[in-house]
Amino acid sequence: MKSLSKVAKNLTGQPMFHLLSKAREMERTGKRIIHFEIGDPDFESPRQAIEATKKALDENFTHYTDSMGLLEFREEVCKYTDKYWGFKPSINQIIECPANTIIDFTIRCAVNPGEEIIYPDPGFSTYYSAIRYNGMIPVGVQLKEENGFQMNPDDVRKKITDNTRLIILNTPNNPTGSTMIEKEVLEIAKIAEENDLYLLSDEVYARIIFDKTHYSPSIMDKCKERCIILNSLSKAYSMSGWRLGYAVGPDELIEKINLLLQTIISCQPAFTQIGGIAALQDIQFITKMVTKLRGRRDILIKGINNIPELSCKTPEGSFYAFVNIKGSGMNSDTYAGKLLQDTGVCVLPGNCFGQYGEGYVRLCYASTSINIIKDALYKIEKFHESLT
Amino acid sequence: MKSLSKVAKNLTGQPMFHLLSKAREMERTGKRIIHFEIGDPDFESPRQAIEATKKALDENFTHYTDSMGLLEFREEVCKYTDKYWGFKPSINQIIECPANTIIDFTIRCAVNPGEEIIYPDPGFSTYYSAIRYNGMIPVGVQLKEENGFQMNPDDVRKKITDNTRLIILNTPNNPTGSTMIEKEVLEIAKIAEENDLYLLSDEVYARIIFDKTHYSPSIMDKCKERCIILNSLSKAYSMSGWRLGYAVGPDELIEKINLLLQTIISCQPAFTQIGGIAALQDIQFITKMVTKLRGRRDILIKGINNIPELSCKTPEGSFYAFVNIKGSGMNSDTYAGKLLQDTGVCVLPGNCFGQYGEGYVRLCYASTSINIIKDALYKIEKFHESLT
Repeated sequence: MKSLSKVAKNLTGQPMFHLLSKAREMERTGKRIIHFEIGDPDFESPRQAIEATKKALDENFTHYTDSMGLLEFREEVCKYTDKYWGFKPSINQIIECPANTIIDFTIRCAVNPGEEIIYPDPGFSTYYSAIRYNGMIPVGVQLKEENGFQMNPDDVRKKITDNTRLIILNTPNNPTGSTMIEKEVLEIAKIAEENDLYLLSDEVYARIIFDKTHYSPSIMDKCKERCIILNSLSKAYSMSGWRLGYAVGPDELIEKINLLLQTIISCQPAFTQIGGIAALQDIQFITKMVTKLRGRRDILIKGINNIPELSCKTPEGSFYAFVNIKGSGMNSDTYAGKLLQDTGVCVLPGNCFGQYGEGYVRLCYASTSINIIKDALYKIEKFHESLT
Repeated sequence: MKSLSKVAKNLTGQPMFHLLSKAREMERTGKRIIHFEIGDPDFESPRQAIEATKKALDENFTHYTDSMGLLEFREEVCKYTDKYWGFKPSINQIIECPANTIIDFTIRCAVNPGEEIIYPDPGFSTYYSAIRYNGMIPVGVQLKEENGFQMNPDDVRKKITDNTRLIILNTPNNPTGSTMIEKEVLEIAKIAEENDLYLLSDEVYARIIFDKTHYSPSIMDKCKERCIILNSLSKAYSMSGWRLGYAVGPDELIEKINLLLQTIISCQPAFTQIGGIAALQDIQFITKMVTKLRGRRDILIKGINNIPELSCKTPEGSFYAFVNIKGSGMNSDTYAGKLLQDTGVCVLPGNCFGQYGEGYVRLCYASTSINIIKDALYKIEKFHESLT
């Protein structure tokens, strides 16, 4: 009688973990590994966030708090959204919660098993994992290289059926680094409106953007009807280990997400949220980080495009380069595996991000200095010479 | 087309929140409220946990970590389990995660919608909420006052069907404060074995126990086959806001819980886990807290039993008193509502913990000093006099 549930059987480990364990094994045997695989910035978290958290610990902010998040944190998000997104949500539209949790809770509260969710492919792997294990139907929209990896509104429209309930949009995009233009963001918001669908807009890279403007579909309904903004401090403030994120969405959906959070998690620590408030108030951190990331990006992309069998569009946001490896004649898994084995350079196969990621590898340049990038480029170049 | 999902519709707020919002409203208008409602100790978290966390923040333990939890935290749990539970689990049997999350993830990985879970009634309200919103069938076993609120093995046996998948056991018990005797704990473990069921043993109050011995069903299989120990630092170390808990269970179930955690939450902060290690190493904290709690308990229970219309078994563990109010002629909701309104003493209606909690109210004495308890007893006495 004792067996695992269907949910348990539908849970599959992320394929990247095989590669990661191989990299760790090589490191244990003394091999030097250059890490381009994990999307975790190497910058220190904002000093003022750390100091505020330490103070909060000393002041005993160590007990249960409101499951929606500290009122002060949500008020800060309110101001932040006004400043950077151009509208002021009501306090009941905001809940504090890690970003991955928001993806899972939003789809569970908005979509039934057997119903369809449209999502970008290649895309952040949690979309597909969460849709699948919950028994919903993942409907991938291919992000095409010739379209600059933007999510094309016509492609989205073609995938809509009577069974569609939600569209996931992600700009700037993980894994491709593309950013969408205003017209197409608004067009997708319009499709959601015409078909009365929810629109989960993953904007965790909104402020990591180079010489471009970030457009959010939330401008249409101010998150009152259908748009849910997903944001996080993990990437923008180099606070991945703090598990601080938030959603801005329609009242009645946020209320249900809160009930799910109450039941499953109770609440988040008050002291980390107090650190988060200090981070959101740090007006220089992101600017400095983006300047450094731009320097890394420019050298990486130039170097990659100097290798005849590789090509890469210049990413306009986030901190990923999605490199076309089709010229190598290898598939993504073989390429990433062989590159790691031969050179110690660890990149992720594009198919970790969906079927349309095949033929690409993702390099995260958020935790590699310029010198390490140069070193890696030299190794990748030699690797390609060795293939011929 | 846009509507909320069935899951969202099955999520109901905990009934206690109506009462809590009334209490807050009264507080805002200047009325003094005595809080017996929330199970959150008023002791400061262990100083060495706070200092270790501050140091970890300064040393930049602020990035992603293993979703299973820090290896060092799990190794500490291993030692702790050996010391207090009498066996040494393997490292792969241990996952770090908030206790409520473990309840939800365990039932989702072990039980399908439509299958039955046996749980104590009255019992911790998350059991019922999580079972219900996940579409599983809650099968309550009444904890009877005449049986000292212990979960009776014969009562459990009667509830087993071909559709049963899991039994939840909780000793020391919330909300009644009862602790189970060895014979009955082992009998329930045997029922799980005979019927090849999972056994989720919620032992978060294991070390908050007065002059009794805690018995765990894990002694039978050392969590290798069917028993999952649920533990947390929230209560025992007065660290409710840190969200630190852990499960010890069968490898293959823990692996699936980890995949769910990876998908939904990614990981927990490293710096809070480093604080958790320091807490688990603090050998004096619990002893001191339990001494204080015993003092509070003795005065509270004596005072309650001096009021003719009330009676209360002396709780042997946890920090709750489950008071029989049937002599008042009121139901739990009316009693708790009227007591709050007339005296400012806030207690939880017993039916918040299940249908068999009707006729009782729960008082948590973890966050009330002896003077406040005396004050409350005086108010409760006057309240009862005013009723006659």
